[in-house]
Amino acid sequence: MQLEVRNYDLDTSEPTVLLHEDDCRILSVSEGDRVRIAGTSAAIAIVSVSDTLVRKGTVLIPPSVQKAAGASVGEMAEVTLSHTPESVRHIRSKMDGRHLSPEAITQLVDDVVAGRLSRIETSAWLTALYIKGMDTDEIAAYAKAMAETGDEISFNDKQVLDFHSFGGLPGNKITPIVVSIVAAAGLTVPKLSSRAISSACGTADFVETFCRVDLDTHEIRRIADEVGGVFSWTGATDLGPAGDRFITVQRPLGIDPRPQLLASIMSKKVAAGATDLVMDIPMGTESKVPTLEMARSYARDLMELGDKLGIRVECVITYAEQPLGEAVGPVLEARECMEVLERRPGHDDVADKACICAGAMLGIAGFPDGTAKAREILASGRALEKFKEIVEAQCGDPCISSADMVPGPFSEEIRADRSGFVRHLSNKAVVAVAKAAGAPSDKGAGIVLGKKLGSKVSKGDVLMTIYAEREDKLLHAVKTATEAEPIRVEGMVIGRVGPE
Amino acid sequence: MQLEVRNYDLDTSEPTVLLHEDDCRILSVSEGDRVRIAGTSAAIAIVSVSDTLVRKGTVLIPPSVQKAAGASVGEMAEVTLSHTPESVRHIRSKMDGRHLSPEAITQLVDDVVAGRLSRIETSAWLTALYIKGMDTDEIAAYAKAMAETGDEISFNDKQVLDFHSFGGLPGNKITPIVVSIVAAAGLTVPKLSSRAISSACGTADFVETFCRVDLDTHEIRRIADEVGGVFSWTGATDLGPAGDRFITVQRPLGIDPRPQLLASIMSKKVAAGATDLVMDIPMGTESKVPTLEMARSYARDLMELGDKLGIRVECVITYAEQPLGEAVGPVLEARECMEVLERRPGHDDVADKACICAGAMLGIAGFPDGTAKAREILASGRALEKFKEIVEAQCGDPCISSADMVPGPFSEEIRADRSGFVRHLSNKAVVAVAKAAGAPSDKGAGIVLGKKLGSKVSKGDVLMTIYAEREDKLLHAVKTATEAEPIRVEGMVIGRVGPE
Repeated sequence: MQLEVRNYDLDTSEPTVLLHEDDCRILSVSEGDRVRIAGTSAAIAIVSVSDTLVRKGTVLIPPSVQKAAGASVGEMAEVTLSHTPESVRHIRSKMDGRHLSPEAITQLVDDVVAGRLSRIETSAWLTALYIKGMDTDEIAAYAKAMAETGDEISFNDKQVLDFHSFGGLPGNKITPIVVSIVAAAGLTVPKLSSRAISSACGTADFVETFCRVDLDTHEIRRIADEVGGVFSWTGATDLGPAGDRFITVQRPLGIDPRPQLLASIMSKKVAAGATDLVMDIPMGTESKVPTLEMARSYARDLMELGDKLGIRVECVITYAEQPLGEAVGPVLEARECMEVLERRPGHDDVADKACICAGAMLGIAGFPDGTAKAREILASGRALEKFKEIVEAQCGDPCISSADMVPGPFSEEIRADRSGFVRHLSNKAVVAVAKAAGAPSDKGAGIVLGKKLGSKVSKGDVLMTIYAEREDKLLHAVKTATEAEPIRVEGMVIGRVGPE
Repeated sequence: MQLEVRNYDLDTSEPTVLLHEDDCRILSVSEGDRVRIAGTSAAIAIVSVSDTLVRKGTVLIPPSVQKAAGASVGEMAEVTLSHTPESVRHIRSKMDGRHLSPEAITQLVDDVVAGRLSRIETSAWLTALYIKGMDTDEIAAYAKAMAETGDEISFNDKQVLDFHSFGGLPGNKITPIVVSIVAAAGLTVPKLSSRAISSACGTADFVETFCRVDLDTHEIRRIADEVGGVFSWTGATDLGPAGDRFITVQRPLGIDPRPQLLASIMSKKVAAGATDLVMDIPMGTESKVPTLEMARSYARDLMELGDKLGIRVECVITYAEQPLGEAVGPVLEARECMEVLERRPGHDDVADKACICAGAMLGIAGFPDGTAKAREILASGRALEKFKEIVEAQCGDPCISSADMVPGPFSEEIRADRSGFVRHLSNKAVVAVAKAAGAPSDKGAGIVLGKKLGSKVSKGDVLMTIYAEREDKLLHAVKTATEAEPIRVEGMVIGRVGPE
């Protein structure tokens, strides 16, 4: 049916057009159905029905859909009922627990990336994935489809080493250290990282405090060729874009279905041209991976996936009962990361973990004792040198040092109200306090732990220092710390049981 | 944070407000999070982020949210991050297959009806329900919660008979006949029906062609007291409103989770004050209920539910391999319905089924041979008399007759291209053709079958006649009929197998 095009001043995540209910009746469409809008080209959009916002005989189309459909304001466009995408049938199949073919999975990913699936449909897909799962063949097809729907970087026949951490560990600031060590050994390691999704600081959030992270795929390729290492942000590229589209639906639901997690990670590695991958699986009570059994299970799945996708995968299961190092928050983590590279005392756990992960990568590349080699590269200062080369290539100041990383001006120390030992340190509560302080959007916000698990504490000792860029947020964070109690100090006596 | 209120010219199904991305960063909110808007009162809304449509320092709020929050355009409102509703945790519980308490279920239904759950969350809930299901206690709690969130009709201590058909049977036009028979026997039968969801014609769609169906609960109560029977539209009342909110999410997904179906039906019966209920379960290959086993299973669940909800339930499993009667489509079904009441020849299956269902209700009310009594009431003309009383009470013409029901002016006969017998008659294809012709939005559109399953056919006989109000739709329906082949005529020979 021919309708006059009017502008719809709203671009939502699902292409939506507004139709008058009388026109809907003639077209036999209802709220939520799809229509095909044909101007000089054609586009599919979801229908929203109104009898107040749109006049009969007209269709309100947002700019993005106007463009896709070649439809101009004031002109006529042909609007017809369109069928539900095939993918919806595949979503129902997965709800019924059926195995999906690579073709079905590819079709679904295509539809998601092209914005053809609505939020309702995407939510149903993720829920079905969460409940029903996927076998490794399906996950591999899923990862491949996600990689193919975006950009891909090719390094020809070079060995490309990659590294990835499962997340869920506050203060996991090792990426620039690992990349610098491995690149210093002469290897190619283009590492892309994400921003925080629900944590207080993602790698991209803290690296951004001292150099550019918004590199496109050409710059990544060039810098990797020039200096060997890159630490940039996935979001500035179009590698595996589907994963990000899913995140806007996952977040409200608070779920991360296993197939989604695995496919999303592997899709980015496939797209980034990795040939060898070291996966860090942080294991801890409050993390995504609370038991060794689950960690091994993920590790096996990842290795099997790597096998099907042509990437050699090695997994390292690491300690995650408490934050890594002392700092949580962008500037603070950048500072601590540099302190390790500068070989300043303290932060042994950060240095250790970085050398173990880098060591695994060096081992894959043929070095007999990878961890020892990594420690050597770090201790010699070559890692710091390479770090500065990469920072410079990424438009940062090559003379940057930890002293340049200054946190927010508002701070408060949380002190122990008793003597004893640190018996409990909650990752979740630490993240809550850091976020309350403004991390990661306020770069200078975050916390620095004064004590770690097992530390001896005297009454009055500083348990943690909170930093913020705004006073109201500092107060909010202090309140959160009082309520959430991230660090609990106890003496030797846990309880007493005696006659009433 | 204080922001200036501006008008958001869009009312979607989920209360949404538009914020500038800089303000979002300060508030620590992202796309899809919730905020609390406080003017003179307070409301929760979902955040949409933009840096083009909204200016920093302002918040765009749709009229409905302005009202709920007591926020006026041009004034300031306090905007703060709000937590995800508790219900989302319950949704995750159901995803994990856990039993939900009545309190949790009530909280979820409250949130859905108040519009506090987003489409993403509602979709996840329905998908989880579809996959994981509910036990009868949960379904009863679900039904009770749905009834309590809307209007309820009370008939004090009177016996209130109700009737409901599971759906999925084209041409199931018996409701006015059943209601008229039972009301003629002196009983109270306030029957509310829905419009078509995915079929070619719902009861409300065809009843609307000869009287009002948009009765509110007061009118329903009054008319039921005055004449005994009512056949109106659920959508004009606020009985069990949650069910309808779910439908806008279910439709695109094409699922009808069992707990949802059962709870939705029972919630409306509870809300309508029913004491006794006869459930018609149409059973057929292409229906919702393809096997006797499944039909019995639904019947058992319904009786158990009725038990927990204080409604006596009796189920009748009925034949649904082909459409009931010959007519499918609003005016055409109204005509056939009246022809049965007028005791015109033909349509025996419609009369039979109506008498069996009415008979079951009369049986519950104490009549020894319900079906025989029902046939007597129909044959004597008392059902027709009562029908006209009800029509008049519902503002229709009491002199209405089948001759007044005139279908669309465009029609085409589909003739048999061979002799034989009707071996296949597809309900789905019949519905597709009727909808292509314009049913149910075009009242005069639909089809009339010339032959039924098992009928002897000579070449050239009329298999079906298609009616439409618009010529383009008639052509579309004829094309659909050619492609979908709703009626297949075959001879005695099905195939031959011989030497190659």
